[in-house]
Amino acid sequence: MEPSERRIAEGILFTDEYQLTMAQLYYRMGIHEKLAQFDHFFRTYPDYGSHSAGFCINAGLEWLVDWMQTAHFRDEDIDLLRGQQGRTGKPVFEEDFLQWLRKNGSFESITMRAIPEGRVVHPNEPLTIVQGPLAMAQILESALLNQLNFQTLIATRAARIRESARHRPVLEFGLRRAQNDAANSGARATLIGGADFTSNVGISHVLGFTPKGTHAHSMVQAFMALGEGELGAFRAYADVYPDDCMLLVDTINTLESGVPNAITVFEELRRKGHAPVGIRLDSGDLAYLSIQAARMLNDAGFDQTTIVLSGDLDELVIMQIIDQIELEAPRYGLDADELVNRLTFGVGTRLITSQGDSALDGVYKLVAVQEGNEWRPAIKVSDTPAKTPTPGDKRVYRIYDKRGFATADLLTLADEVPEKMDRIVLRHPTKTGILRELSRKEISGIEPLLEDVLHEGQLVRPHPPFEEMRALRKADMERLYPGTKRLLNPHIYHVSLTERLWNLKERLVASALE
Amino acid sequence: MEPSERRIAEGILFTDEYQLTMAQLYYRMGIHEKLAQFDHFFRTYPDYGSHSAGFCINAGLEWLVDWMQTAHFRDEDIDLLRGQQGRTGKPVFEEDFLQWLRKNGSFESITMRAIPEGRVVHPNEPLTIVQGPLAMAQILESALLNQLNFQTLIATRAARIRESARHRPVLEFGLRRAQNDAANSGARATLIGGADFTSNVGISHVLGFTPKGTHAHSMVQAFMALGEGELGAFRAYADVYPDDCMLLVDTINTLESGVPNAITVFEELRRKGHAPVGIRLDSGDLAYLSIQAARMLNDAGFDQTTIVLSGDLDELVIMQIIDQIELEAPRYGLDADELVNRLTFGVGTRLITSQGDSALDGVYKLVAVQEGNEWRPAIKVSDTPAKTPTPGDKRVYRIYDKRGFATADLLTLADEVPEKMDRIVLRHPTKTGILRELSRKEISGIEPLLEDVLHEGQLVRPHPPFEEMRALRKADMERLYPGTKRLLNPHIYHVSLTERLWNLKERLVASALE
Repeated sequence: MEPSERRIAEGILFTDEYQLTMAQLYYRMGIHEKLAQFDHFFRTYPDYGSHSAGFCINAGLEWLVDWMQTAHFRDEDIDLLRGQQGRTGKPVFEEDFLQWLRKNGSFESITMRAIPEGRVVHPNEPLTIVQGPLAMAQILESALLNQLNFQTLIATRAARIRESARHRPVLEFGLRRAQNDAANSGARATLIGGADFTSNVGISHVLGFTPKGTHAHSMVQAFMALGEGELGAFRAYADVYPDDCMLLVDTINTLESGVPNAITVFEELRRKGHAPVGIRLDSGDLAYLSIQAARMLNDAGFDQTTIVLSGDLDELVIMQIIDQIELEAPRYGLDADELVNRLTFGVGTRLITSQGDSALDGVYKLVAVQEGNEWRPAIKVSDTPAKTPTPGDKRVYRIYDKRGFATADLLTLADEVPEKMDRIVLRHPTKTGILRELSRKEISGIEPLLEDVLHEGQLVRPHPPFEEMRALRKADMERLYPGTKRLLNPHIYHVSLTERLWNLKERLVASALE
Repeated sequence: MEPSERRIAEGILFTDEYQLTMAQLYYRMGIHEKLAQFDHFFRTYPDYGSHSAGFCINAGLEWLVDWMQTAHFRDEDIDLLRGQQGRTGKPVFEEDFLQWLRKNGSFESITMRAIPEGRVVHPNEPLTIVQGPLAMAQILESALLNQLNFQTLIATRAARIRESARHRPVLEFGLRRAQNDAANSGARATLIGGADFTSNVGISHVLGFTPKGTHAHSMVQAFMALGEGELGAFRAYADVYPDDCMLLVDTINTLESGVPNAITVFEELRRKGHAPVGIRLDSGDLAYLSIQAARMLNDAGFDQTTIVLSGDLDELVIMQIIDQIELEAPRYGLDADELVNRLTFGVGTRLITSQGDSALDGVYKLVAVQEGNEWRPAIKVSDTPAKTPTPGDKRVYRIYDKRGFATADLLTLADEVPEKMDRIVLRHPTKTGILRELSRKEISGIEPLLEDVLHEGQLVRPHPPFEEMRALRKADMERLYPGTKRLLNPHIYHVSLTERLWNLKERLVASALE
């Protein structure tokens, strides 16, 4: 695309056609500036087929807000819309509406509350609440979902991988297999969710990280083609990067060629006073090879070197590798924990595209419309009760049990204050008669999750620093029960409604079906 | 991201760190300007778990080339690299290399041959061949794979969906669930691969398409919240869009509310002289509901209206829906084919993210290095023979059988001319002794697939118009055997080597293992 084309495709027209046809209809009915409230939430955790998540990590907000603060209908955008024709050749959009869009078509009247990036979140609770004139709040839907669905999906996967890796370093290596520019937003999400670094150079610099990486098979191949072989390639690398020497050892044969050649070069480095960094294994039986490579490195006196594992890793593969090392390392005279503690995991495709479940099912639903001074809750009834969104202006609280673990998230009406309730009744969001009660003495804390982000288009406070988002994720993960974090068949975390909210929903469903 | 940050993240630094550390090593060794050749190919068709592809549709080249023609190391990029420190605090990149990058760090010396976008392609054949100075050809790898892997993945899925839909219109609706900006490149790929239109407004305008869409549940909900109900919403829509009236009928209850209300409004439109367009079904049993909705529409005299189906569709779901309609429609007195012929399919998440297999395993492998005037083939040996790339400077031909169907793709050395061969021996790329012979009289045509795209950074000819890419796809799909296009367990298409190429590969593998 040309730069002028990018401005079209990545600006305010980064939306679905029906948002614009609906906006024109609202304009024509005179309700386009009526205040409306939309909730953004997801319905189910990612399900990767053989495993599924029991929590998500919220992400994407800052980039969405950045986009909202610049996107607006420019003359060029209006001209394109003016040229659109319906079935009979008449323009789809009429001039008065286009003039209104040109003048008012920005997000400067949007007010937004959201759960901060980095926090653990769960299905069916509003992660983002948008209030604004109906037409522009509607047009926002597509871009909002596009940005928040994806980054939350990827941050979640990163957190799972970090858990499986027992908090050993995780490097994001997925640029080449990412879904195009999602390499950048995805890398950002992995850094919030659990990756320590990424190999992606540009986004590392933008976010203030050091990009990570050493060399590929092609370097060894080039030296082989020029008659210098793997050893020549390793020597050259050690010469140029004597203090950052990490060698990829599987171009020819890991244990018969790669590791011995690496040790030769490491010995040369040591004689020159440099400490070699380690090796990378990118193919084969990574558990077996890391045990054998560790033995060879130890025998040569390099027991402090790192072993980076890469090649189609995900949380299950990493769990399996560590499990196999725990079982097999002692048979070869190695301490399994020592070996695990020198591992680093380079994770590519399966993280950056969330292979197995490549989309989060986030939605954006109208929950209330202002009529005069009154907010009228809106409902969409579904044959599947779980798909009927909870109506009205709501708040979200997290309830911690006596041990300090998160035990439930509670959705309330805006004017309810759970901190002041003697006992808290947690209603199942869809099933009648399923409820749970908590008395004050079972609760160690109640925490509101939503924060003000935008007030009529203006940032309420600056975006949080990156490290703050990572700290939030870390703290929330520590307060999740291990059963909820489990990689396979996690325990289902409770997201509940207060009695009043539950009653409102019941009443509206009944009246919609009358 | 700020605009200046985007220029960093989406420019030449959209690459992996190791490309730059390797480039510096080549520079230091004095081999950075040695001519090298890399092949880009994928190893396996997408495998969606319950089904897998038997062909791919090539896509992404134009956007890659556009990027290559502007990306280069700017002062800002060099400054960022200058600031990178290794483990001991010393700069990773030294000044002389950075100066070389600043001066020579563009793709203007890259020569590229490629199979055109829109064409059917298969594993292990070079889709793109890059020739250029080793350092810059290496740095190109990450961005090339990022662009071509994804668009090919998505174009392929679109072609499968088009087949399953029996060439009824397919609309791309996935922006909200796409992996961020991949909504745009993905929409482009679906339009090459098989979608007729997309709901994505911006990219439609950039590519010269009319964006498609009507209204969402939220419009009906807004009218309900304001006391006007579904019928009021439909009437309002028909008023504003009398000649483009397509109504979403499942907000409350499809058959009891949505379709009857739509018919009421359609009758009002008809009295005013307008032809209603149709309805959209977005939930429930789409086969059953489309039969019942069609009966109701027919009874009211609207047997020409379209029925758009949407909601988590993919090729298997569409196949199943059509199958169920074929079985059940006659029981309700409907002609199944007539019903299928009024369907349109709106496909979202599962197409735009290729749910089930979210990445194509495309790779970029060094296959030759120039030494003096001689090209030296390069090899990377793998324990898995299928993963050992075919070395050397190659060409790709498609062989058509007597019936005009594609029967095999043949990889040859650059100087081989299969058109002049009396009989063509097709060698299995990895298995010894498996070969197939074709005599001239079994062959109706031999077609070279690779075309010159860039000569030392300059476009050899302008990018083809969009319709040309779609026409190539259509023609190639018609020349694929039905067994190859089958959605489940497709017949495996042959990609073979000539005897000479096979012998070269064998010899190089043997010498690498010596």
